[in-house]
Amino acid sequence: MRSEGERLAELAKRRGFFLQTAGAYGGVAGFYTYGPQGAGLKDNVENAWRDRFVTREGHMEVSSPDVMPAAVFEASGHLDGFDDMIVECPDCGESHRADHLVEDATGMEEVESLPPAEVADLLAAHDVACPTCGASLADEPVEEFNLMFRTNIGPGTSSPGYLRPETAQGIFVEFPQLAEYARNQLPFGVAQIGKAYRNEISPRKALVRVREFTQAELELFVDPETDEPALERVADVTLPLYSAADQGADDGGVEHLSVRRAVEEGVVADPWIAYYLGVSKGWYERVGVDMERFRFRQHLPGELAHYAADCWDAESEVDGDWIEITGFANRGDYDLRNHAEHSGEEFTVFKQYDEPITVERATVDPDMSVLGPEFGGAAGDVAAALEALAERDPDAFREAEDAVTVEVGDAAHEVPLEVTGFGVEEVTEAGEQVSPHVIEPSFGIGRLVYTVLAHALDRDEVDGEERTVLRLPPAVAPTTVGVFPLMAKDGLADRAREIAADLRAAGLSVTYDDAGAIGRRYRRQDEIGTPYCVTVDYDTLEDGTVTVRDRDTTDQRRVAADELPATVTGLAAGDVAFAEV
Amino acid sequence: MRSEGERLAELAKRRGFFLQTAGAYGGVAGFYTYGPQGAGLKDNVENAWRDRFVTREGHMEVSSPDVMPAAVFEASGHLDGFDDMIVECPDCGESHRADHLVEDATGMEEVESLPPAEVADLLAAHDVACPTCGASLADEPVEEFNLMFRTNIGPGTSSPGYLRPETAQGIFVEFPQLAEYARNQLPFGVAQIGKAYRNEISPRKALVRVREFTQAELELFVDPETDEPALERVADVTLPLYSAADQGADDGGVEHLSVRRAVEEGVVADPWIAYYLGVSKGWYERVGVDMERFRFRQHLPGELAHYAADCWDAESEVDGDWIEITGFANRGDYDLRNHAEHSGEEFTVFKQYDEPITVERATVDPDMSVLGPEFGGAAGDVAAALEALAERDPDAFREAEDAVTVEVGDAAHEVPLEVTGFGVEEVTEAGEQVSPHVIEPSFGIGRLVYTVLAHALDRDEVDGEERTVLRLPPAVAPTTVGVFPLMAKDGLADRAREIAADLRAAGLSVTYDDAGAIGRRYRRQDEIGTPYCVTVDYDTLEDGTVTVRDRDTTDQRRVAADELPATVTGLAAGDVAFAEV
Repeated sequence: MRSEGERLAELAKRRGFFLQTAGAYGGVAGFYTYGPQGAGLKDNVENAWRDRFVTREGHMEVSSPDVMPAAVFEASGHLDGFDDMIVECPDCGESHRADHLVEDATGMEEVESLPPAEVADLLAAHDVACPTCGASLADEPVEEFNLMFRTNIGPGTSSPGYLRPETAQGIFVEFPQLAEYARNQLPFGVAQIGKAYRNEISPRKALVRVREFTQAELELFVDPETDEPALERVADVTLPLYSAADQGADDGGVEHLSVRRAVEEGVVADPWIAYYLGVSKGWYERVGVDMERFRFRQHLPGELAHYAADCWDAESEVDGDWIEITGFANRGDYDLRNHAEHSGEEFTVFKQYDEPITVERATVDPDMSVLGPEFGGAAGDVAAALEALAERDPDAFREAEDAVTVEVGDAAHEVPLEVTGFGVEEVTEAGEQVSPHVIEPSFGIGRLVYTVLAHALDRDEVDGEERTVLRLPPAVAPTTVGVFPLMAKDGLADRAREIAADLRAAGLSVTYDDAGAIGRRYRRQDEIGTPYCVTVDYDTLEDGTVTVRDRDTTDQRRVAADELPATVTGLAAGDVAFAEV
Repeated sequence: MRSEGERLAELAKRRGFFLQTAGAYGGVAGFYTYGPQGAGLKDNVENAWRDRFVTREGHMEVSSPDVMPAAVFEASGHLDGFDDMIVECPDCGESHRADHLVEDATGMEEVESLPPAEVADLLAAHDVACPTCGASLADEPVEEFNLMFRTNIGPGTSSPGYLRPETAQGIFVEFPQLAEYARNQLPFGVAQIGKAYRNEISPRKALVRVREFTQAELELFVDPETDEPALERVADVTLPLYSAADQGADDGGVEHLSVRRAVEEGVVADPWIAYYLGVSKGWYERVGVDMERFRFRQHLPGELAHYAADCWDAESEVDGDWIEITGFANRGDYDLRNHAEHSGEEFTVFKQYDEPITVERATVDPDMSVLGPEFGGAAGDVAAALEALAERDPDAFREAEDAVTVEVGDAAHEVPLEVTGFGVEEVTEAGEQVSPHVIEPSFGIGRLVYTVLAHALDRDEVDGEERTVLRLPPAVAPTTVGVFPLMAKDGLADRAREIAADLRAAGLSVTYDDAGAIGRRYRRQDEIGTPYCVTVDYDTLEDGTVTVRDRDTTDQRRVAADELPATVTGLAAGDVAFAEV
């Protein structure tokens, strides 16, 4: 009995969904090519995402390069922090994820949060062997391996570049310009669908852990003080939540809570994340994720990415494993703050007040001709300490008898009030610089495509024969309707081609097929998930009707050919049920 | 007076078409980010390409990885042959294209076809100086620099990978599987839209010479013996042709010939290339290339890529320079043959005959017990020569008196007929293995976007003020219609939002804007190329009509709001002229 993953991989290659790249050269681990059906399905999933998360939410979409210079990843923290732990076998030379080997050997969890030396100790303590050749890894060092693909930009090696590990940095690094496009009004969202790359040590499980993949990321920039999500739009959506607390509890499991209750009870602490969990759930359902094999799981503290304050994953179950298909993170001001510091540019938004406000500002103007002789080399530090004190606690000056005390290092210094030049001025402020926080739903398109295929793959029996059928929703199926002439002769093929052209003109994705027995043609479309098939027969030439067949039930209905575009459009949109045709 | 390129770059950055990536870090040469308008325009161009070159031609589309293993590029010839000539300045260390420096200094053409040593001699002979610092390059070596970005797949350096220099190889390398999807029927086409990378030594001119770009490539696999294009579909299309002969002639220029005449007169020797020139020309026009600034130019012999037998480029003129926007090449069997040789797999299609045929096949079965003693070490070569002769010229055996003569090296050997084991057998063949030839139209999407923007950029005068306007065709404009309430109050904003939603529901790309004076809102849409604007005013609340404004003429018409989706759809599709509204 083959596993779900094996059955899927076989169908995917045979029918053109996906296959390992460069099979003629033995393939290359972690790289997959989407065949014609897979490319169509992936395109449909991307367009459905764009429609829901960009167009309907009123956000912008951009497209930045895959290769980015080192400066970007110094600032983002990926050059330092985007590592996996690696151990190399002394015998066969194969490299492995050290933390995974320890987890497999001990049943421990979150081993990646431990320091490498400790993981090396665990390899030794449990005498872990190389999974490839069986040699002992007990005395081998565990090292950090950076997961970014490195290359050189231009001739020589003086200008290193990296394949981006997430599309997000291409957005963050252009924030000053993007804020202009948004007319400096928070909140605003910027999305990107594109490739990202991670040089995984051990790629595995087909499209699940690969080295090159497609992300659809939305970076929502919000004012952390004042902006709030429109929670009421999704308040009644029920979320299957697997919180960090439940993961730690003996009897913990998935809780089903409405978005409203999840926020009220603090299960999902961040209302922005709760909003996107609510929006996403309905979307997953529409593109074909089986809600019986789906949950939202909170990250455990040790799992959090280096930039994230809180994070929930959407997970789907395939072949008994839970796969992260989306990460929902509050990245705070981590990224913009770091790019501002590293580049020296402003990564803020000027927020205008409704009315200008007048504020009192305490200032000092120390008399250095007195401080100099008095404090010598420390005079500058004393002046700076006075300035900081005035800003922090102006009353220390107002209430002082005749001197204020400031601390420089371990020493306390008394400074006569009259040499501090203390004063208060009134300042009119039109607004303030706001450092936006970032809310990020980050979708892995390949994993979603894999999930949708796995959850759609089914077997049943038709006319006494076993049938393989992909129950893809019409919204994502690569082909919406197949058109077959019963025979290729007697004008049936010409009539069928006309009907196919009419369906195409209505914006539907259509396949024409006149090769082989009609039953085989149905099976072929069943296997690629085409929801409807139309057969043109001799009656069509007589009375202008055709047979429409429903993939899932194999039920058939007779429909007038000239009503066909409207009928199939209605079926595909879910406006009409097949039984009502 | 700013150049066309400068005006375009300014508008592109300010309005969100494109900007140099990572400007906060000083930018990085050859990498550009598409802003919201540019990403929308690029997406529309890609979808228009997909519609014309994939869907309407009945081809397949796939998506393969950007990173590919070294074996692929050993076979494709890119590891050896995909080089530019580089010279490094001894003073400032800057690298330059050596052939370009020679061309600039001498007015010579096609310097890239010369060997590096000769180019170094030319640098010395003309005492060429470093364009950056002025130091002499006369004594500097000229070296080949491979233009592929290199990286490592997995830990260590044992598995080099390259960023693909063209999307095509991702198709060729999967040919055996793709032929299965096409049910082994030639001709069939496989398309891919995706990133490609060239580590240019001197990137320049915005989107024209960049290091990362998007290609849309179609690889059409044909039987070179029997397949022919449907030339009649495009026979009357007039092509502006600049042939290699005309480029060499003193009085040569662009000739305007129909596809039919271009083929008949042999100006375009390859009918498949002629077919795609014809199909493409109308498509360029529809997406906004100005036909007054456009030509098809044949490659000169020295320019041909290492794989191409004949090649024509589509070129557009921007800022006085001609830019290659598409290459049309007949790649012959170069790629499939090389992948077959390097991988040891079959890259052919089995072509079944209508009826099995019976052929005579001459064979030999040499008696080695005679040849061995007679020819010693050369016996094996003699046997092979007999086999080759039987295949090439069986009559040499049939007509021989009692011996045949074969040549091995310089020596001629007589072999008695009876020891050759010559015979003729009848073989039934159901078909034959065909090595398909490849016809490739390869579009540079970024250069096309750049061309379309440059050709659309215009200035005129409206109400006595100069106006900047992008005359983008509705088919590619990022936004089709802008909707403005005259004021944001009195229910006008709500009504305008309803109208915007109705237009979106009709599948149109819509922008809603209620900020600032109406004139400024029009100007903003003019600058991003939005063809139509709708204004909702107090009359709308009274009589249900709105004002529709035409970008190009600034003419206005009053239209019933409930007819608006149909009206704008008709205008955008070109079914209705604005004057008829």
